[in-house]
Amino acid sequence: MADDPLVIFTPSGKRGRVPAGTPVLEAARKLGVDLDSVCGGRGICSKCQVAPGKGAFPKHGVTVAEDALTGINAVEERYDRIRGLKPGRRLGCQARIQSDVVIDVPPESQLHRQVIRKSASERVMVMDPAVRPFYVEVVEPDLDDPTGDFQRLSMALEEQWQIKGLRADLEVLARIQKVLRKGEWKVTAVVWDDGRQPPQLIDLIPGLLDGPLYGLAIDLGSTTIAGHLVALDDGRVLASSGLMNPQIRFGEDLMSRVSYAMMNPGGAEEMTAAVRDGLGHLATALAEEAGVEPARITEAVVVCNPVMHHLMLGIDPVELGQAPFAPATSDALVLKARELGLKIAPPARAYVLPIIAGHVGADAAAVVLSEQPQKSETPVLIVDVGTNAEIVLGDRTRVLACSSPTGPAFEGAQISSGQRAAPGAIERVRIDPLTKEPRFRIIGVEAWSDEPGFNEAAKATGITGICGSGIIEAVAEMRMAGLVDPSGLIGSAEQVGTARSVPQGRTHSYVLHDGTAEGGPLITVTQGDIRAIQLAKSALYAGARLLMDEFGIETLDRVVLAGAFGAHISPLHALVLGMIPDCAPERVTSAGNAAGTGARIALCSRAARVEIEDEVRRVTRIETAIAPRFQEHFVAANAIPHATDAYPGLVGQVSLPEVSYNTAGDDRPRRRRR
Amino acid sequence: MADDPLVIFTPSGKRGRVPAGTPVLEAARKLGVDLDSVCGGRGICSKCQVAPGKGAFPKHGVTVAEDALTGINAVEERYDRIRGLKPGRRLGCQARIQSDVVIDVPPESQLHRQVIRKSASERVMVMDPAVRPFYVEVVEPDLDDPTGDFQRLSMALEEQWQIKGLRADLEVLARIQKVLRKGEWKVTAVVWDDGRQPPQLIDLIPGLLDGPLYGLAIDLGSTTIAGHLVALDDGRVLASSGLMNPQIRFGEDLMSRVSYAMMNPGGAEEMTAAVRDGLGHLATALAEEAGVEPARITEAVVVCNPVMHHLMLGIDPVELGQAPFAPATSDALVLKARELGLKIAPPARAYVLPIIAGHVGADAAAVVLSEQPQKSETPVLIVDVGTNAEIVLGDRTRVLACSSPTGPAFEGAQISSGQRAAPGAIERVRIDPLTKEPRFRIIGVEAWSDEPGFNEAAKATGITGICGSGIIEAVAEMRMAGLVDPSGLIGSAEQVGTARSVPQGRTHSYVLHDGTAEGGPLITVTQGDIRAIQLAKSALYAGARLLMDEFGIETLDRVVLAGAFGAHISPLHALVLGMIPDCAPERVTSAGNAAGTGARIALCSRAARVEIEDEVRRVTRIETAIAPRFQEHFVAANAIPHATDAYPGLVGQVSLPEVSYNTAGDDRPRRRRR
Repeated sequence: MADDPLVIFTPSGKRGRVPAGTPVLEAARKLGVDLDSVCGGRGICSKCQVAPGKGAFPKHGVTVAEDALTGINAVEERYDRIRGLKPGRRLGCQARIQSDVVIDVPPESQLHRQVIRKSASERVMVMDPAVRPFYVEVVEPDLDDPTGDFQRLSMALEEQWQIKGLRADLEVLARIQKVLRKGEWKVTAVVWDDGRQPPQLIDLIPGLLDGPLYGLAIDLGSTTIAGHLVALDDGRVLASSGLMNPQIRFGEDLMSRVSYAMMNPGGAEEMTAAVRDGLGHLATALAEEAGVEPARITEAVVVCNPVMHHLMLGIDPVELGQAPFAPATSDALVLKARELGLKIAPPARAYVLPIIAGHVGADAAAVVLSEQPQKSETPVLIVDVGTNAEIVLGDRTRVLACSSPTGPAFEGAQISSGQRAAPGAIERVRIDPLTKEPRFRIIGVEAWSDEPGFNEAAKATGITGICGSGIIEAVAEMRMAGLVDPSGLIGSAEQVGTARSVPQGRTHSYVLHDGTAEGGPLITVTQGDIRAIQLAKSALYAGARLLMDEFGIETLDRVVLAGAFGAHISPLHALVLGMIPDCAPERVTSAGNAAGTGARIALCSRAARVEIEDEVRRVTRIETAIAPRFQEHFVAANAIPHATDAYPGLVGQVSLPEVSYNTAGDDRPRRRRR
Repeated sequence: MADDPLVIFTPSGKRGRVPAGTPVLEAARKLGVDLDSVCGGRGICSKCQVAPGKGAFPKHGVTVAEDALTGINAVEERYDRIRGLKPGRRLGCQARIQSDVVIDVPPESQLHRQVIRKSASERVMVMDPAVRPFYVEVVEPDLDDPTGDFQRLSMALEEQWQIKGLRADLEVLARIQKVLRKGEWKVTAVVWDDGRQPPQLIDLIPGLLDGPLYGLAIDLGSTTIAGHLVALDDGRVLASSGLMNPQIRFGEDLMSRVSYAMMNPGGAEEMTAAVRDGLGHLATALAEEAGVEPARITEAVVVCNPVMHHLMLGIDPVELGQAPFAPATSDALVLKARELGLKIAPPARAYVLPIIAGHVGADAAAVVLSEQPQKSETPVLIVDVGTNAEIVLGDRTRVLACSSPTGPAFEGAQISSGQRAAPGAIERVRIDPLTKEPRFRIIGVEAWSDEPGFNEAAKATGITGICGSGIIEAVAEMRMAGLVDPSGLIGSAEQVGTARSVPQGRTHSYVLHDGTAEGGPLITVTQGDIRAIQLAKSALYAGARLLMDEFGIETLDRVVLAGAFGAHISPLHALVLGMIPDCAPERVTSAGNAAGTGARIALCSRAARVEIEDEVRRVTRIETAIAPRFQEHFVAANAIPHATDAYPGLVGQVSLPEVSYNTAGDDRPRRRRR
């Protein structure tokens, strides 16, 4: 009615009239304002805190009277006494509207709060997780109502939270009677509801759940399994951890694992057991690192390439090893997390992103979800660097995707002094073009190796090896310093004029750091290391070029480098190495682990799941394995930076010495087996 | 169009005009005629056989021309040559309609064929199982279509069979690629679809499935687990088997198992493991007996009382042991059969009927489904006799149900010479009132023990003990022969005048059969046996009376005796014993294992599941455990047949000698613990 009080909510600006005496929470629901509540307005969860305005609001054309809201009542008074209420804050479920009022909903009171992600394509993410806690009061059983406890719990959730058709696995059903009685029929139901399948009861907690629920975002790579433990109320990351994929003992690259499955009866099962075991360890490690009870981890999202996808699911990947590379299933999946070995809440679900095609996986889908090429005005190239690189090229007209078998070199594997990115690993390298002397930084120490305090600081971890980003910079720097010629050959001490070039068989190695005096390792870059990097970067370049051919463009306007170490790649060095086609260095940005980010986005947002499932159907995938031009591109890309591509974008920014150390008995690189 | 040929299907009588050239199968579908097809009209499954009429059909006002249907084509000719087609039969998918025709659909060609069940309430059951085979041809993958094999299979099922939103468990997903290729993309999909949850892919078979699918109907009792293996095409029972419930070692009656769970940490888990183990053995035994591959057993239906229900599901039954006897869950459940230990097709589902209340279980629901009291014009009492008796009283106005703790005596347990109903067990007994000499029949032998040929025939099995129906008849006969007085006391040799009454401590036993000479057992009915039967029958009677009180009737018009041995109970003896309130013997019928029958009905018909789930909500359950009058009824019912009830219906049919063997030191029966 016209003389009902007018209520205006900020920041949403939603406004409307409600009958005098309406609680603020109820008014917010009526007007579709996003105001959180777990206890359903019983004044115990305090999630619905609001900050009522006072005085004149010419902008809204209202003046708020002192008594626009009812005074502090007993419930609020008690809550304030026991847990403390910030000045000016009220409980939305207790304060009732008496006259025109402007009410601000602070971010922490918004259920679907917005989280800004810093990334190549900066975007706003809205919290909308599939799992949420719901506080309910359940009708007690009596002799005249013989229905089951679960039926009365479901009824309460339907009446108090409009959750219809609740289901529960046996392990939860087996617990509810004790919990209902322990909580004296007041419980918090943890419900998984993706809006598409019947809602599932994941857990039941006596009384009001205190603290948030958590989820796992997992990027299951061929070499590394990376995971984030995420709070499902605001999306913050509480712990990130990674471990080597235990499947490595069956083969370092994907295709060698596929052939292991082909050659060895039961081989696929072995690998499935191994990766599920790894996932279990990762989940446990993340929970410990964050000090979170595994029972509070109530959902997981997994992204991976198709071969890992099949092996994780217990599906023989043999079909992925031969044309037409048909996957057993390509759509997104909802499974029980325990089926995948994840030791979290027993009934927790695991959402597996859809795969795009036989060689283009859920990880590529996650990269698309994270970087949103389909919304870019100009074509953007996104490379997610790993043992198998996902490469995406697109703009709002179309999106192309392929994967390329770079091998594990970029992750520090198959490198003589290589190691995973961990404290003590060399991650940055600079080589003086004149003295040919190196300086470097190791993970965990701020100072460069030639700066004061480095040696002391380095004692903690030691200088243990070279990680992926380190080897990329090292090879690029060696090329710029003239230690390596365009063909990738390391010159001898005489040729390059430094004793750091030491003979090794018929080839040479460059000594980056000699720790032997202190009992540490001798860290060198060998000719073999250079070859491994050349093979990897050629595969990456060839894949990117293939997409450019298909897209019909010759040059790149924007490149996003992603990958387990993507955040640490120096764009300049990547270009010098020829990892990616030429592009102005300032137009090359890093997005960190885009696949992992995509997994986190899907974990925090049900809408994002629908979005990526639709988008995946629109992505055109290019099959590198059978594209004739892939070979050409690959061979031409073997030179550093490239045999034919002039890299005009680099010109002027760096000088690449015209040297050649080619003598008799040079060893040509071999095309790596896919 | 008016000049389109007119087609009339019999027996349905459905008629309509279809364009000339329409295949009979297609016409049947158009007109909603029930004509089976697994191959979807490809002329390979032969399920759609029809018998076209010839000549004049004045009844339908049509005359069928010789060429009303197209002639035998190559497909039919080939099918007839290889597998043989009955004379006059055509394949509905091949024969096309050219002019007016009358077409008969033989029973075996009806998908939803009717099965007449002989039972107290004779009824027609329509085959409508949840699991069915569907033959499909799946699009092969190619490089331009990167979707998964499962997605293309789902598409085929949607396009060819209108099955939408198919789901599959991991174990099936892991097999489909091999099967699709083995079947060269022609496969039979076994799909579970109860019409309420998303359809599930249960199995995938290369080419056309030959032979039917099977299901298990299981009646999980406190003492016995009985199972039927049923063909899902026509509902016939291929094997029936039973085994003792392995939980007996934890306690013979339900409440002693509940207390075992209360007293022993992990006790409930032990009992769950035991019963699931038993279910596994039963499933294996049934498959072997019928010579059916376990992989072809694609669904199971389970009925049981609430305590067994909880223990089977892994739920601690403690709440069922104390008022208000709240079950953890009461609605019908759909689970994976393997979760319950059933060793059948791994992804097979198990449907568990709803339970009515804390003491009135899914077995009572199954009895209602089988006997349909809610459709009876006059009140009918249905007792399903077991260790825990389900008792139902109702008519179309209302249905009451309760359960009563009879103990295992009626199943031959806790009886000195008792045994399960198996070959060699005494099942019928007659005692000459004058000579006091017994004659009996054993299971597996037609002749009575005093008839020629009995001894030879009995050698095969021996005379091993007394089963439930045998002990009931024995006690009733002993009462009629004056060997036992109304209080249940066995008279001494002197008192009853036969040496077959032998002293045993302070009481006497009656020798039914002495096989010791041939090394067989001495089979007697002891005073303890009589007491056990008295306790059991008193509990049964008291429960029935409680329902009559509630229903407001004094006498019964109709009684249905059901139970594991229900088919073998003699109504007259049941009345003499006072198992049930008085009723004219000819109005007492037997329904065999009504609970098991109910399970079979639910297995064969999805509609029956919906029906019983609705009906259960309307049933009023009476809680015997807290009804004060139960005690009164129980005590009064201890006498044989009864202390106060005159049993007018029996009068004139039998004479009950007015004897009394009550002396000093008589032992009064104790109320058994519930």
